[in-house]
Amino acid sequence: MPRQLHLNAFLMNTGHHEASWRLPESDPYAHVDLDHHVRLARTAERGTFDSLFLADGPQLWSSVAQRPAGALEPLTLLTALATATEHIGLIATASTSYNSPYNLARKFASLDIVSKGRAGWNIVTTAGAGAARNFGLDAEPAHAERYACAAEFLDVARLLWDSWEDDTVVADKAAGVWGDDARIHPPRHRGTYFRVEGALNVPRTPQGYPLLVQAGSSEDGKRFAARYAEAVFTAQQTLADARSFYADLKARTARAGRDPDHIKVLPGIVPVIGSTEAEARRLERVLEEHIVHEHGVGRLEELLRLAPGTLDLDGPLPDGLPSEDEIEGAKSRYTLIVELARRERLTVRQLVARLGGGRGHLTFTGTPEQVADTIGRWFAEGAADGFNIMPPVLPSGLETFVDEVVPILRARGLFRTEYGPRRTLRERYGLPRPANQHVTARTPGAAPAAALVRHP
Amino acid sequence: MPRQLHLNAFLMNTGHHEASWRLPESDPYAHVDLDHHVRLARTAERGTFDSLFLADGPQLWSSVAQRPAGALEPLTLLTALATATEHIGLIATASTSYNSPYNLARKFASLDIVSKGRAGWNIVTTAGAGAARNFGLDAEPAHAERYACAAEFLDVARLLWDSWEDDTVVADKAAGVWGDDARIHPPRHRGTYFRVEGALNVPRTPQGYPLLVQAGSSEDGKRFAARYAEAVFTAQQTLADARSFYADLKARTARAGRDPDHIKVLPGIVPVIGSTEAEARRLERVLEEHIVHEHGVGRLEELLRLAPGTLDLDGPLPDGLPSEDEIEGAKSRYTLIVELARRERLTVRQLVARLGGGRGHLTFTGTPEQVADTIGRWFAEGAADGFNIMPPVLPSGLETFVDEVVPILRARGLFRTEYGPRRTLRERYGLPRPANQHVTARTPGAAPAAALVRHP
Ligand SMILES: Cc1cc2nc3c(=O)[nH]c(=O)nc-3n(C[C@H](O)[C@H](O)[C@H](O)COP(=O)(O)O)c2cc1C
Ligand SMILES: Cc1cc2nc3c(=O)[nH]c(=O)nc-3n(C[C@H](O)[C@H](O)[C@H](O)COP(=O)(O)O)c2cc1C
Repeated sequence: MPRQLHLNAFLMNTGHHEASWRLPESDPYAHVDLDHHVRLARTAERGTFDSLFLADGPQLWSSVAQRPAGALEPLTLLTALATATEHIGLIATASTSYNSPYNLARKFASLDIVSKGRAGWNIVTTAGAGAARNFGLDAEPAHAERYACAAEFLDVARLLWDSWEDDTVVADKAAGVWGDDARIHPPRHRGTYFRVEGALNVPRTPQGYPLLVQAGSSEDGKRFAARYAEAVFTAQQTLADARSFYADLKARTARAGRDPDHIKVLPGIVPVIGSTEAEARRLERVLEEHIVHEHGVGRLEELLRLAPGTLDLDGPLPDGLPSEDEIEGAKSRYTLIVELARRERLTVRQLVARLGGGRGHLTFTGTPEQVADTIGRWFAEGAADGFNIMPPVLPSGLETFVDEVVPILRARGLFRTEYGPRRTLRERYGLPRPANQHVTARTPGAAPAAALVRHP
Repeated sequence: MPRQLHLNAFLMNTGHHEASWRLPESDPYAHVDLDHHVRLARTAERGTFDSLFLADGPQLWSSVAQRPAGALEPLTLLTALATATEHIGLIATASTSYNSPYNLARKFASLDIVSKGRAGWNIVTTAGAGAARNFGLDAEPAHAERYACAAEFLDVARLLWDSWEDDTVVADKAAGVWGDDARIHPPRHRGTYFRVEGALNVPRTPQGYPLLVQAGSSEDGKRFAARYAEAVFTAQQTLADARSFYADLKARTARAGRDPDHIKVLPGIVPVIGSTEAEARRLERVLEEHIVHEHGVGRLEELLRLAPGTLDLDGPLPDGLPSEDEIEGAKSRYTLIVELARRERLTVRQLVARLGGGRGHLTFTGTPEQVADTIGRWFAEGAADGFNIMPPVLPSGLETFVDEVVPILRARGLFRTEYGPRRTLRERYGLPRPANQHVTARTPGAAPAAALVRHP
């Protein structure tokens, strides 16, 4: 069997295109409607996707005028989706800057149990002052500090998830002994950012802990990913850039002493699909026509740190923009956007349209065959282990992908035709269940035990 | 129609009796099994209960040897139960000492949307050093400080829940305008314990915000309840004590400028039910026989701040115990337990058995008629607006209550026979939907708007 693709459905409101909510078919309340999300999750499951994914930031974006704002909190929504699906993995974004390890570790452990081993965590450090000001700070912590805090957060979280051995419970009713206290390992962690003394109050879960996903591509981000991540979401505009990112990350992971096969690289793609090229272009045009350019220009000026009113809609980006070093927010996304504009000599108007479609992710307009070709090429040429599928319009864009692109990928032998027996999210991605560090320390080389918690 | 009882099902693992897990019928993994909880929730819904409730503390109790330990995080579990039920209210405990207002307000708002207006929050300040040490502290904050922090937490949380007016969304696709920024009200809160600048990223919910429940009965606790709570859980051992608590709380609420009818008082009762008195006594005896006394004595010594090994199993409580003023943990529970032992002249062994059954809540052993009589008497005599039903063994104790006690209460005209149309949790308890404070400030006397978020 040829090497198999992994597909993750990145769900977002009425779609990733910022104007999608204005189409006649779109429900402007979809983002706070559980039924909308259940329909999307079941569609992705019909397409035998590995997982679905929800982005997040603990803040309200500046204006509710521009497009649907607010959301259901991702772990809440994923829990509801866990009960509406059976196989698909459930990945939620959560911030290491604005959560406490004990609370967050509990929530992911609980989702892993409720979903029978399908939980994943997209670990982000959360750029921007808006979020910081909702948590007692005046400004966002510096980029390097956010990543240092994230690393400590992960160390603590893994101590918490390993604080119960898999076989802690004896359940001896006759003797009146439920568990073995010797198999409980309180973290007793006193670090720079966190102090956590006690064991988690959730037993070790089907997966041991959630699949760890990371989505920052700066130098700090890649270093973090090589150490902790089992899957990486990334925005890449060209095959060449994607290949070098892929090779770099695999090499870093090997240097960190891990199997490079145990980190899966998933670039994002926004597929604008039509049954003919002309039809696909028409959908692209309709979406572009609904963009409100002044909004896009305002956001671009903010990102580039320019005063409002600086950019000329029909001119190029100005010279003398800050370098990535000066950016404390989302470093790699900043560089990607500036380079995209320069490389393709885009006017501000064109850049706004491109970002409106995918916020820096690859947008691709074409027929199902052409979409499958692009995916297949990146996959074959060392740029990806799979893709983050980011439909421009939802639910229709996901339905089209599942009904028209997935069958082609299956026919080419690149993608599963059915789920088969129930599997954990980690098994779906071909990753091993992590051993408990306390057991490994005691008996090096011991095989990871099966999960204690029964999951019938 | 006579005044109507409210019933809340307080769910706990295999039951409230600490030895319940040792009965042949009990599943020692029940507490981490979603199906167990779904079954309980559906049983309570079959009994037309107003709500169900989950307790919580962010820590693992000292030993896993004694009984099933750990749990599913309550908001996660309630979200899953929201999808498995239709009418019953869903109340989760969460701590104001170990959460940030922004994160917690989001989660409750999301649960309120997902459950279509059935969310409730049991607001606790979390006693004990164990929890404190999981969140960077060495010891628990003082009792008065925890309540001061809780009050500020509530003020911020209500600002967050009111940060969207009900009619913020205009959804004008043609004009490209989704919402009205003038109807967004960022808290801009800078207080003693919290600073929260921005608006919530969840629209105002079906209930406006979750039903606010409180469960502390100390002086500080009652003051807090009078100001914020819409329902109060309480442990009361005698009808006289319950009546004076009830009268005191209603009077305090009126003095705080609120309608005393808008705070519902729900004492707990652990009903040990048998079809004859002898059968009920037999169940009580079987449970008592399964108590491991040394565990109970150890916990009692901790609570009373005595050195291990001080208490004599067959003697009374010693003299010279600390007064409530010296207790920084759960003040009112401490006093209740000491008074219970003195009033009934219990030996330590007998006290351990009583606490094993209900941790200080009223335990009552008898036939369905007798249970209904007790409930009816407390309800009629000004001691309760309803009850927290705490079955000693689960699921059987809840099933017995629903099948045998509820019909009697219905026949007496005290309790609903069906849910009727879909209602929010607050409507179920006969409480009004809170108006948005920003709208009230603008147009005093305006009726609270219906929820913006469609809930079909
Ligand atoms: C597919 C994808 C999804 C992302 N989702 C989130 C998110 O939900 N929340 C967030 O704060 N950042 C998110 N990010 C941004 C990254 O976490 C990161 O901040 C950004 O890529 C810049 O990282 P860097 O500063 O390491 O370059 C996402 C990135 C990618 C590629
Ligand atoms: C029915 C009931 C349920 C309670 N549930 C919790 C809980 O889940 N978590 C918690 O920390 N305290 C819980 N408590 C304890 C109270 O929040 C409070 O700490 C205790 O009653 C002492 O309060 P006081 O110090 O104000 O007297 C509960 C109390 C009652 C009566």
